[in-house]
Amino acid sequence: MGFSLTPKETGFYDLFSQSANHLIQGAAELTAILGADTQVEREAIAKRMDEVETSADEATHEIIRKVNSSFITPFDREDIHGLASALDDCIDHMDAAADLVALYRIASFPKGVVKQVEILSRMAELTVEAMPRLRSMKDLNTYWIEINRLENRADKAYRRMLAELFNADGADPILVMKLKELIDELEAAADAFESVAHKVESIAVKES
Amino acid sequence: MGFSLTPKETGFYDLFSQSANHLIQGAAELTAILGADTQVEREAIAKRMDEVETSADEATHEIIRKVNSSFITPFDREDIHGLASALDDCIDHMDAAADLVALYRIASFPKGVVKQVEILSRMAELTVEAMPRLRSMKDLNTYWIEINRLENRADKAYRRMLAELFNADGADPILVMKLKELIDELEAAADAFESVAHKVESIAVKES
Amino acid sequence: MGFSLTPKETGFYDLFSQSANHLIQGAAELTAILGADTQVEREAIAKRMDEVETSADEATHEIIRKVNSSFITPFDREDIHGLASALDDCIDHMDAAADLVALYRIASFPKGVVKQVEILSRMAELTVEAMPRLRSMKDLNTYWIEINRLENRADKAYRRMLAELFNADGADPILVMKLKELIDELEAAADAFESVAHKVESIAVKES
Repeated sequence: MGFSLTPKETGFYDLFSQSANHLIQGAAELTAILGADTQVEREAIAKRMDEVETSADEATHEIIRKVNSSFITPFDREDIHGLASALDDCIDHMDAAADLVALYRIASFPKGVVKQVEILSRMAELTVEAMPRLRSMKDLNTYWIEINRLENRADKAYRRMLAELFNADGADPILVMKLKELIDELEAAADAFESVAHKVESIAVKES
Repeated sequence: MGFSLTPKETGFYDLFSQSANHLIQGAAELTAILGADTQVEREAIAKRMDEVETSADEATHEIIRKVNSSFITPFDREDIHGLASALDDCIDHMDAAADLVALYRIASFPKGVVKQVEILSRMAELTVEAMPRLRSMKDLNTYWIEINRLENRADKAYRRMLAELFNADGADPILVMKLKELIDELEAAADAFESVAHKVESIAVKES
Repeated sequence: MGFSLTPKETGFYDLFSQSANHLIQGAAELTAILGADTQVEREAIAKRMDEVETSADEATHEIIRKVNSSFITPFDREDIHGLASALDDCIDHMDAAADLVALYRIASFPKGVVKQVEILSRMAELTVEAMPRLRSMKDLNTYWIEINRLENRADKAYRRMLAELFNADGADPILVMKLKELIDELEAAADAFESVAHKVESIAVKES
C-alpha cells in the first residue's frame, strides 16, 4: 500500500542541477570574451552566450511546469519557484554583460573586470556543487559562507575599480560610461549568486 | 434563491479596460512630444502626461479598493492586484520618459526613439483590445504572441540605438547620457507591456 | 488561567523603534559628510556610516528572528517582515550615498543635495516618532501625510537639480555622472522613507 516519493523528488533535484550547469557555461563564455582578439570573435561569443541563456530559460520553465503539475514537491512550491528564478537571474546578468562587451565594442578591460569574472566562475562552480546537496540539506553551510566571502571580495574589487575609473585624470567620458555599465552588470551577477545562496539557506533552515 | 455574480465581475473587467485606456492616451502624448516644436510645447505635453498618470493611478487604486471590499472576485485577488500594478507600471514608464524629454530639454530624437514610441503605441492598442477578453479568457493567445513579437522588435531597436549612440565618433557625452536615460525608460515601458501580457497569460492558464 | 500577550508585543514595537533609530544616525552622518573639509574626514564618516548600516542590519535580522520564533505577533508576519525590510532599505540608500561621496571624492555639493539631506533628516525624525504609535495604531495620519509632502518636495528638488546639472554649459561629464549617481541614491532614500509610510498606512488600515 506504500508509495514512493522518490521519482518526483529526484526530478526536481536533477532539474536544479541542470539549471545550475548553465552558470558554469556562462562563466566560461565570459572568460572567453575577455580574452577574445577581435570584435568578430566577441560577437560570436556573445551569440553563444545568448544560446546558453535561452537554454537556461527553458530549464527554469521546466521547473515551473513541474511545480505546477506535481501533487507533491520536495519543498515549498514558492521556494522552488524562488530558487529557480534566482538561478535564472545569475545567467541573465552574465548574458547581459557579454552583450554589452559586443554592443559597445569594448576591446580591453581593466584588471578589476578580469577579477570580477574569476569570482563569478568560482561562484558558478560552488553553486553547481551545492545543488545535489539540496536533497539531504547537509553540508550546505560551507557553500553559503564561501559565496558570501566571494561576494564581499567582488564588492571590494567593484568599488576599487569604480574609484579608479572615475578619478583617473583625462578619462574618456564615453568609455567610462560603457565600462561602468559593464562592471555594474558583473556586480549584479555576483549579487545574484549571493541571492541564490540566501534562498538555499532559507530553504535549509525551514526544512531542517 | 439564486444570486448572480455578474455585477461584481462586470465591475472588474470594466475597471481593467478603463485602466488600460490610459495606455493609449499615454502613447499618444509620447508621440506628440516627439513631434513638438518648442520647449514650451514639450513642457505642456509632459504636464498633460502627468495628468494621465494621475488618472491611471486612481484607476489602479479603484481596482485595489474593489478587491479589498469584494467578497467574490472573478479571479485570484493576488492576480488582480498583480495585473493592476503591471498596467500601472506601463504608464509610469511612459510618464517618466515624457518628463525626461522636458527636463533635459531634448529637442531632436534619434530615429530609434521614434520606432520605440511607435511600438509602444501598438502595444497599448493590443493591450486595451485584450482586456474585455479576460471575461471569457478566449482569443488571448494572439494578444500575447503579438506583444512578445513587438517586445523583441523594441529590444532590437533599443540595442541598435545604444550601439550607434555610444560608438559614434565625437559624440557629446552629456547628450549621450540624456538620450541613454530616455531610451532606457522607453525600453522599460516596452518590458512593462510584456509583463502585462505575461500576467494575463498566467491568469488564463490558471483559470482554464 | 489567562495569559498576557504584552511581553511579546512590546518586543516587536521596541525592535521597530530601535531599527528606526538608525535612520536618525544615518541622516546625521550624511549631514556631516556634506560639511566635511577633507577626503580623510569624508572617508572616516563613510566608515562610521557603514557601521550604522551593519547595526541596522542586525536590528532587521533580530525582527525577522523574532517573527519566526513567535507564536503570536502583533500584526501579520508578512507585514512585520515588509516593514522591517522597508526600514532597512532607507539606511541602505543613505549608506550607499555616503559611500559614493567618499569613493568618488566629491568635495563640493550642489545646493539641491543639501536640501535632499535636510529632507531625509526630517523624514528620519518623523519615522522614529511614528514607530511607538504602531501599538495603538492612532495618530499615524499626520505621519504619512507629512512624509508624502516631504517626498514631493524631495522629488521637486531632485528634478530641478537634474535639469541644472545636465543643462549647464560646459559641465564636466565625469562630474555630472558622479553627482547624478549621488542624487539618484538620495532620491531613492526619500522614496524608501515613503515606502515605509505606505507600509505603516496599509498595516493601520488592515488592523483598524
